[in-house]
Amino acid sequence: MNLFRNFKSVTKTCYGRGSFDKLGEILEPQRSANKQFMVFVVDDYFADKEDFRKRIPARSEDEIHFISSLKEPSTTQIDALRDDVLARRGLPAGIIGIGGGTVMDIAKATSLMFTNEGSSVQYQGLNLIKKPGIYHCGVPTISGTGAEVSMTAVLTGPVKKLGLKCDWTVLDQIVLDPDLIATVPQDQWFYTGMDTYIHSVEAITGTKKNTFAEAYSEKALELCREVFLKRDRKDPKSDEFLMVASYMGGLSLTYSEVGVCHALSYGLGKVLEIHHCLANCIAFDKLEDVYGDNVQEFKGMVKHNNIHIPQGLAKGWSEETISAMAEVAYNLPHMWDHAFGPEWEKVLDRERIKGWYRRM
Amino acid sequence: MNLFRNFKSVTKTCYGRGSFDKLGEILEPQRSANKQFMVFVVDDYFADKEDFRKRIPARSEDEIHFISSLKEPSTTQIDALRDDVLARRGLPAGIIGIGGGTVMDIAKATSLMFTNEGSSVQYQGLNLIKKPGIYHCGVPTISGTGAEVSMTAVLTGPVKKLGLKCDWTVLDQIVLDPDLIATVPQDQWFYTGMDTYIHSVEAITGTKKNTFAEAYSEKALELCREVFLKRDRKDPKSDEFLMVASYMGGLSLTYSEVGVCHALSYGLGKVLEIHHCLANCIAFDKLEDVYGDNVQEFKGMVKHNNIHIPQGLAKGWSEETISAMAEVAYNLPHMWDHAFGPEWEKVLDRERIKGWYRRM
Repeated sequence: MNLFRNFKSVTKTCYGRGSFDKLGEILEPQRSANKQFMVFVVDDYFADKEDFRKRIPARSEDEIHFISSLKEPSTTQIDALRDDVLARRGLPAGIIGIGGGTVMDIAKATSLMFTNEGSSVQYQGLNLIKKPGIYHCGVPTISGTGAEVSMTAVLTGPVKKLGLKCDWTVLDQIVLDPDLIATVPQDQWFYTGMDTYIHSVEAITGTKKNTFAEAYSEKALELCREVFLKRDRKDPKSDEFLMVASYMGGLSLTYSEVGVCHALSYGLGKVLEIHHCLANCIAFDKLEDVYGDNVQEFKGMVKHNNIHIPQGLAKGWSEETISAMAEVAYNLPHMWDHAFGPEWEKVLDRERIKGWYRRM
Repeated sequence: MNLFRNFKSVTKTCYGRGSFDKLGEILEPQRSANKQFMVFVVDDYFADKEDFRKRIPARSEDEIHFISSLKEPSTTQIDALRDDVLARRGLPAGIIGIGGGTVMDIAKATSLMFTNEGSSVQYQGLNLIKKPGIYHCGVPTISGTGAEVSMTAVLTGPVKKLGLKCDWTVLDQIVLDPDLIATVPQDQWFYTGMDTYIHSVEAITGTKKNTFAEAYSEKALELCREVFLKRDRKDPKSDEFLMVASYMGGLSLTYSEVGVCHALSYGLGKVLEIHHCLANCIAFDKLEDVYGDNVQEFKGMVKHNNIHIPQGLAKGWSEETISAMAEVAYNLPHMWDHAFGPEWEKVLDRERIKGWYRRM
């Protein structure tokens, strides 16, 4: 049985329009732990959105940190945030991430680093964390990464881009309020939503999936079609569907893996610092030889929503850059194994990977 | 927001063929609690299945109780099991239910009653339980009830048939092994599978659902169609689909309610002690005026699988029996409210309910 996994679920889930206004009530029973204050990490997109800020249920003893999601989270950033809070205030009762995958991953990682000594660098990998973290809650304000349900918090370290991955990484609470994603700028809304479309396609087309993963992938894909092909973004159901698609797309990976697109995307991210969701779109657009009809469908979604996917990027890349990205991608054997089976080395070498990059 | 709910998930989920053989490994870290022994409650269908018995990972210090699922669980039965174990051995480390909804509900309820004093009768209802129970794990050997993911353990008491319903009721662990349901006798396999079909139909056709519930219902229904209409039971995918359908059908109720069929089924259960899943089938078969196309589809499934749904039962029922069942059903206002909306009393009276029973 190569698919034996015993996965940890998010402890509590609150889904529904307006549920963000229940966050204060949800946090209440958690406030008595440790030094009895909460740390909110919030995407700095909201720093000047006065109406939204007022709705964050922070009390006078709590702290709000506005955090840029332009760069993906780094080990240095997590360590610094933890050290700063511990030095000034001691151990918080909990941490709440309000934002996209980046901000939720910061909440997840910092929760763990509050109780595990040393630098987060030493915990990058599977099951290296020694102790459960403090209470951590995620409130997505953009949908698609699946970070709300995943057991990893991906961090860029000095050497590796790799997650703190263990059962304790999984959030204790998520609040899924479709109203929150209504105002996301169009391009970002699309790129991030495509993360769930793309990893659901990858999950279902590889060798390491099972029926549980298939059911979640299929439903996530169906919901993506409603959102990105059949309906208009103004349709009130659209945000509701997308939020469920992200949740189910995330769960499709509990019993499967990502594939070729994510491998290429990691190369773009590591070498050129292209944001994960945009990098996925740039790569998927050129993967017709692997994901055939789904790439056609993706192009239809791009057109339906008037989105621009950057083209002709490779003209500006040196051979060194392309080789460096191919090296990053090649060194993700579990993705290739899933995509092409255990004999993947027979169909894949660095040259084929470079070929994909040259098309971008 | 009438749909504000913050639902608790099963903590850990292991899905896959052969995963039953991982149960010993899964229980290992739980064994050090309390008096360091485990209680297995197992459907007595397996009492003489030597091959299966050998696979139950009970150690010499553990106890196995074979339990009949002919009758649904009662408060007396739970109290007696708890008292017996406590008197002889003290507090177990955990309890594992291996069987259908009845057996899993016994494990859930007894887990709670090990730590909450007095009779289970006093805890029938929502959030009446005072303390978390002991570790509890469910292993379905028949699929459809959704008991593996629900936050209730339905018990028949001296007055009420009502669940011990709270966050702590939810299982700490489920092991979903499609191999275990392969040998279920055909009729029971069908009746129990129809529970997920029927509550998914009810969940999606009422007024109290949201998009989260819809997504789970739709996927559960699609999987039921694969199992009961399109494929043969011998198809290796069939058991895998059914197990996921039961899981997803159960989750469809986190943000919805059951409806007319379950209300009528409760009447049949309470007054005539007809087993829940069979009662559902008897009732759903006659509900074309409410669930139109789905009743047609259900009849197609009955035919495709050569199942007999009892007919002409009402001929043997007195007016008193019919009135008694109608009274039980009428007194489930949350189901009627969901099925017909807040003004349900305008379209429903006891006479209409009796009419449905007379058709059976």
